[in-house]
Amino acid sequence: MSLNPKRTVAELRELRSLTADENGAQRLAWTDTWLRAREWFTKKIAELPVEHYYDAAGNNWATLRGASEECVLLGGHLDSVPNGGWLDGSLNILAALEVLRRFAAEFNGRPPVTIRIVDWADEEGARFGRSLLGSSAFAGTHSISADRARTDRDGTKLEEALRRCGVEIERFPEAEQERKNARAYLELHIEQGPVLEKLGLPLGVVLGTKGVERHIITFYGQEAHSGSTPMNTRRDALAAAAKLALEIRNIARKHADAVCTMGSLKTFPGIATAVVGRCETTLDQRDLDPNILAQMYREAKEASQRFADEEKCRVEWARLWNIEPVPFHPDLLDLCEQAVREVSGASHRMPSGPLHDAAEVSRAGIPAVMMFVQSLGGISHNKIEDTREKHLELSVTALDRLASKTVDWVLRHP
Amino acid sequence: MSLNPKRTVAELRELRSLTADENGAQRLAWTDTWLRAREWFTKKIAELPVEHYYDAAGNNWATLRGASEECVLLGGHLDSVPNGGWLDGSLNILAALEVLRRFAAEFNGRPPVTIRIVDWADEEGARFGRSLLGSSAFAGTHSISADRARTDRDGTKLEEALRRCGVEIERFPEAEQERKNARAYLELHIEQGPVLEKLGLPLGVVLGTKGVERHIITFYGQEAHSGSTPMNTRRDALAAAAKLALEIRNIARKHADAVCTMGSLKTFPGIATAVVGRCETTLDQRDLDPNILAQMYREAKEASQRFADEEKCRVEWARLWNIEPVPFHPDLLDLCEQAVREVSGASHRMPSGPLHDAAEVSRAGIPAVMMFVQSLGGISHNKIEDTREKHLELSVTALDRLASKTVDWVLRHP
Repeated sequence: MSLNPKRTVAELRELRSLTADENGAQRLAWTDTWLRAREWFTKKIAELPVEHYYDAAGNNWATLRGASEECVLLGGHLDSVPNGGWLDGSLNILAALEVLRRFAAEFNGRPPVTIRIVDWADEEGARFGRSLLGSSAFAGTHSISADRARTDRDGTKLEEALRRCGVEIERFPEAEQERKNARAYLELHIEQGPVLEKLGLPLGVVLGTKGVERHIITFYGQEAHSGSTPMNTRRDALAAAAKLALEIRNIARKHADAVCTMGSLKTFPGIATAVVGRCETTLDQRDLDPNILAQMYREAKEASQRFADEEKCRVEWARLWNIEPVPFHPDLLDLCEQAVREVSGASHRMPSGPLHDAAEVSRAGIPAVMMFVQSLGGISHNKIEDTREKHLELSVTALDRLASKTVDWVLRHP
Repeated sequence: MSLNPKRTVAELRELRSLTADENGAQRLAWTDTWLRAREWFTKKIAELPVEHYYDAAGNNWATLRGASEECVLLGGHLDSVPNGGWLDGSLNILAALEVLRRFAAEFNGRPPVTIRIVDWADEEGARFGRSLLGSSAFAGTHSISADRARTDRDGTKLEEALRRCGVEIERFPEAEQERKNARAYLELHIEQGPVLEKLGLPLGVVLGTKGVERHIITFYGQEAHSGSTPMNTRRDALAAAAKLALEIRNIARKHADAVCTMGSLKTFPGIATAVVGRCETTLDQRDLDPNILAQMYREAKEASQRFADEEKCRVEWARLWNIEPVPFHPDLLDLCEQAVREVSGASHRMPSGPLHDAAEVSRAGIPAVMMFVQSLGGISHNKIEDTREKHLELSVTALDRLASKTVDWVLRHP
């Protein structure tokens, strides 16, 4: 039985009809719809000569034992954001399933190295605001104490939601056992951005995941009556923030792949008849180069102070979150590029702005790489998320080639 | 009995202790605290030889009959915003009370013309979002059908709140009867802005109330992932709005007294990890000159379209509200300036950015003028709202002089 990428597309459609409604995919982690998706996947897996179980963090592992205990991992996630797309996370898993089928068939159930699929638990973090949950547990970067008391919109605790699915947060560290013998990690994903489409390329090689600096920046001015306060006596916090909203674009544009985003801006008191006394903004900065990231952070901070001074305001910064850039493994990057070129004739190396489970795996010291397939319109986390069918098929073929090359690479580097 | 401005200050303090808590004045219209303030005022009035009643819109009238039926009106309002100041509206009323006492004493209860005090109902509109309610009914500019169904935060209807205070909204038009024989309207008010303080002047002459153009301006871009969307492919609605937030200041600064304010800016989806797809802003523009107001409106509209084009966004305007400029009566402006100069040695003519009941009276064709007294720090609608005691006293004296001059003017212009 040879690789059948058309089957992957058919299975993606099957999953969609099982777990989406008129607003999109509803495979929110730790919900019944998500459990239904996992059960469906487990039935597919059961047709193959694999061992199957959930680890202590709720990650779903399917293992095809090879001649060697050394493992090549293929990862993805079946969970989605609410009203999500049909490809984000699930393409990875169903393409990996097809690759596993091919290995099982070609080597009569016993490939040269062990091949494992992992369906990470709660990649999106959409319900409890904690993304990469399962892969963090695997990587040992998860902080139980900080996360166990998180609640969803209805007040349900993370801990309780997990327990309902048979997962005890206390036992998370046991998931680190799954790292044993892991020699390489491969992840296919839709790009979720417009770059490959603009380049006219179906597939790309992901250099790594960008580091992120995420801050709340608050400008304090003086609330004042919009009718009685002359322009030249105002201390308008919105004016200072507006200057920063424009300046962060100049800061990012100095660098090829850097991005800076002001995604939220709130005005207080926020009424038509008052000069803004306080303006709360968010800044999200990303780049693969830690030096560029540090430079952008410094420049934004300096600019915010300059604008605060100009507008007779005060500015405060508070870090929301940050993560260092995670570059993928150079050998695997080369293998990925070979696979992409063989399948599609051309390739492009690019960083990933969004985070992925591959970053956590890489932080655990396991060589990792990701492959992107073109997203139409760069749109994701939305029911209109889509990729051309022929590109989906190419991506399955390319992942399969990459898996074979990686098996060879593991065998060459014992 | 001669004019006693110190009594006015003492009565302002008395009212504050009766109707303020640790957060400021709580004389919100149609509430028990407001009714208590009115009852307190009515007791003060009862010591004088005046007729007293509430009109059909809940305005409180005290009439000192004169030799002539021709009336000079002195107005103000006892209602406040929640957590308001001790002077806004109530200074007007208590200074008018002192002036009425002086007229009653000097002319032995029968001045040459009739003098009336009016305590307008619901000037602030803080509870139902409809300011100048009582004076609009008086002026016949009130639209019953548009306002009767307004609700407060608790869902109480305007109509019901009024009925509880004995006011039937159906009968509002009867309040227009109070315009009979009205020949002039005078209103003292705190400036609620920083102009007089910066000029070092206690008192000013108000040229009129500025016209207002108030709009919601919405920019539509494209929501996109902050990590995966390159800077040069973004359609950032916040960037277009930020440019407008800065440009409206240039538009206003071309004119001496003009103001433009972006008081509210909302981002959607408004999260750190998404480029802003939609940005909703408010614009409030004010000037006393209708041509300048029209020019500023046109320039802001053109600028918003230019910025939308630059950012590959779309822009929509929706008018929230507008009012034409209301210039006060030239003869009364001169009398007011004379009174201010006699009392304080200097004067300054300035427009009022905030609206006042005097604008509604003026729109009804009754000659009107206002006098401003300095506000400390330009702060109002806040418990720290304040004016120097000696300036409060000067303002009572100046209002008294203005009232005498206006009585003479009415007699000279039968």
